[in-house]
Amino acid sequence: MILEIATLTIQSGQQAAFEAGVAQAIPVFLRAKGCRGLQLQRCIEDPLSYRLHVQWDTLENHTVEFRTSPDFQVWRGLVGQYFSSAPQVVHSEQVLSSH
Amino acid sequence: MILEIATLTIQSGQQAAFEAGVAQAIPVFLRAKGCRGLQLQRCIEDPLSYRLHVQWDTLENHTVEFRTSPDFQVWRGLVGQYFSSAPQVVHSEQVLSSH
Repeated sequence: MILEIATLTIQSGQQAAFEAGVAQAIPVFLRAKGCRGLQLQRCIEDPLSYRLHVQWDTLENHTVEFRTSPDFQVWRGLVGQYFSSAPQVVHSEQVLSSH
Repeated sequence: MILEIATLTIQSGQQAAFEAGVAQAIPVFLRAKGCRGLQLQRCIEDPLSYRLHVQWDTLENHTVEFRTSPDFQVWRGLVGQYFSSAPQVVHSEQVLSSH
């Protein structure tokens, strides 16, 4: 399992519209090959900064298959207009868990 | 529930020792007031960069109570020597989840 960690910085005043766009996008992610779920986190220290966490079976499910699919344009169409800068995206593998 | 997101950058060659230190620290976190769990994530694009995710009941459980407790020094004693720069820590609240 791969965790996509996207840091998304939103224009001031557009947070509610952005959050509604992500809510609308949940089924877009869930129908993508290898997508296991997502969570949207809002940063307490900077309410214009969000972390979108998406669980994927493989790195390529996100970086190749989703990004080249028509649904990537659907996703960007729902939220891209609210970004104040380009998303910063990294991926990680879980090393340890307390559960 | 609050998510602590700590970006931890580790000295080259010290990853295994760092990961072992975090494994040893799991009970230190789990006995802290308000701590619900933690996960260690290793960044695929930069294997010296980790994300430590810790779930807390409240922000103060981490920023006040844990950081001023003797166990914070135990935690830093287990892993601090492997950092190559100061940890970058933010906190977030979950806005949306697909689950």
